[in-house]
Amino acid sequence: MYLPQQRLASSAIDQRFGWAAGTTERRYGLAARHIAGPEESTSMMATEAARQALEVAGIRAGDLDLILGACGVMEQAIPSTATLVQARLGLGKSGIPSYDVNATCLSFVQALDLAAMRIAAGRARRVLVFSADIASVGLDWSEPDTAAIFGDGAAAVVLGADAGEGVLASRFETYSEGRAACVLEGGGTRYGGTRDPELLDRTNVFHMDGQTAFRIAARYLPRFLRALMDEAGVGYNDLACIVPHQASGPALDHGLERLGIPPDKVIRTFGQLGNQIAASIPNALHHAITSGRLQRGELALLIGTSAGLSLGGMVVRC
Amino acid sequence: MYLPQQRLASSAIDQRFGWAAGTTERRYGLAARHIAGPEESTSMMATEAARQALEVAGIRAGDLDLILGACGVMEQAIPSTATLVQARLGLGKSGIPSYDVNATCLSFVQALDLAAMRIAAGRARRVLVFSADIASVGLDWSEPDTAAIFGDGAAAVVLGADAGEGVLASRFETYSEGRAACVLEGGGTRYGGTRDPELLDRTNVFHMDGQTAFRIAARYLPRFLRALMDEAGVGYNDLACIVPHQASGPALDHGLERLGIPPDKVIRTFGQLGNQIAASIPNALHHAITSGRLQRGELALLIGTSAGLSLGGMVVRC
Repeated sequence: MYLPQQRLASSAIDQRFGWAAGTTERRYGLAARHIAGPEESTSMMATEAARQALEVAGIRAGDLDLILGACGVMEQAIPSTATLVQARLGLGKSGIPSYDVNATCLSFVQALDLAAMRIAAGRARRVLVFSADIASVGLDWSEPDTAAIFGDGAAAVVLGADAGEGVLASRFETYSEGRAACVLEGGGTRYGGTRDPELLDRTNVFHMDGQTAFRIAARYLPRFLRALMDEAGVGYNDLACIVPHQASGPALDHGLERLGIPPDKVIRTFGQLGNQIAASIPNALHHAITSGRLQRGELALLIGTSAGLSLGGMVVRC
Repeated sequence: MYLPQQRLASSAIDQRFGWAAGTTERRYGLAARHIAGPEESTSMMATEAARQALEVAGIRAGDLDLILGACGVMEQAIPSTATLVQARLGLGKSGIPSYDVNATCLSFVQALDLAAMRIAAGRARRVLVFSADIASVGLDWSEPDTAAIFGDGAAAVVLGADAGEGVLASRFETYSEGRAACVLEGGGTRYGGTRDPELLDRTNVFHMDGQTAFRIAARYLPRFLRALMDEAGVGYNDLACIVPHQASGPALDHGLERLGIPPDKVIRTFGQLGNQIAASIPNALHHAITSGRLQRGELALLIGTSAGLSLGGMVVRC
């Protein structure tokens, strides 16, 4: 994992808005988040995380046979962020296929599923999957309910074809009735030609209708989770831990509990890192592993929602 | 497939630049390209193509179990273009998983490979893959060598698990030493926060160093093609046709011939459509099928290059 050097405490947000000390932390449930500096680009952060993952896995970068970028938002429209990370890893002449998967906050889970499927099919042996996001460039501070809960960062994993590991089940569902609940309208062909400052101010920042997103997620998640756990053939008691997308304080507190997920098994990084978009789940996974709460051979449930609105989850053996 | 209503003839470009009649067509090898109007968004064009593909396949949209967006550039940064197409197909409450794959001009081939792998693994039965691109919003007309060769459009396919069809081989390689040859630096986290008009003018348009891209492609393509055809276990004589990315006139004329590809087997849409980014290969595939040059049961080679620089190809039975 990689965290930007600059840590923005919630107390600084209190000061910015002239709020009483402790307001931001009490209202949103996080003490701090990290903010990327000018040198900390999406691909730079991803590469730092990738280097660590390769070192822990004991694999040289040149021995990879697939690099999957799994960011919420790309570094630039062309070429893929995976290509930029391939270059930073010194693999410019390697030929290792490198491309991106985009499922917003679920990009990591979607790419992990894809990588595992390629390995199971014998079409890859060692795959790098990374997520890196810089929410801070696209926040609208006139909407503090949204702006205050996001943080920047990156995380990466290396997957290999070892016996005894793997995916017990994976499941994804998209309900585009919720497509307007989480949007960043700029950055693509829709407003690609505009130079209008007012339009750029409105379309190049992230807007979230948290209540609508929460309502749609709450409607479909119970059935989704039952189907996922049934497919995996395990119960919550069989899991060492649950690694949710760190969407927001209320989502982690009430949302998961209402789904019947045991609170003591839930990994939380939100209080120190905020919602890191696609990098949230792999950062929480990193925390689960390094804190000893998820050990080799144990089971974990990765679960989250993303803009779309999409639901995604996997039961994996570490 | 879907083509925008507005057709821009090369003669109009001659007039724009005060060039002698016929200059654009003679210099770049295309008579026209289509330009998307205000109502012809990426997801609108993709949806029109998707509706046709569903009709030809005899499948209702609700019977899909995966929607893969495979554009060169997304409609907007969040959510995925696949989500927007799901909504336009009236599937907002369907739950059909919908996300994007981004490999620039090779997105379609990469997504096709992914869809075929999911079907082979028994994890999907009917998959919609679409590509739609609006190059015209990101062209710099002070660089006519680049701007004049691109066109807008969309195409889609529906894949199913029928016996006798499928993928004989697929191969992808990325050489990020060529990452600066084809770039659109805006649209992501790198310049997401900028409102500087000069910076926007420079970073929100596509820049191509065609010679560098061509040189790197030429270096790696011969070995790449041999490996792909060897894996498929077929020769060029076994193929009904070859469906290349419609990168440019010279790439189609000299590039393919130098690789030993028989010119009479090559499908060309460039002369009327230009380079449609990710939509080029599926549009050429559509042309191959509707013109009778690729019939049910016959073999085709899909082959192309993309920003990265990446090479990609598949040998498929139709």
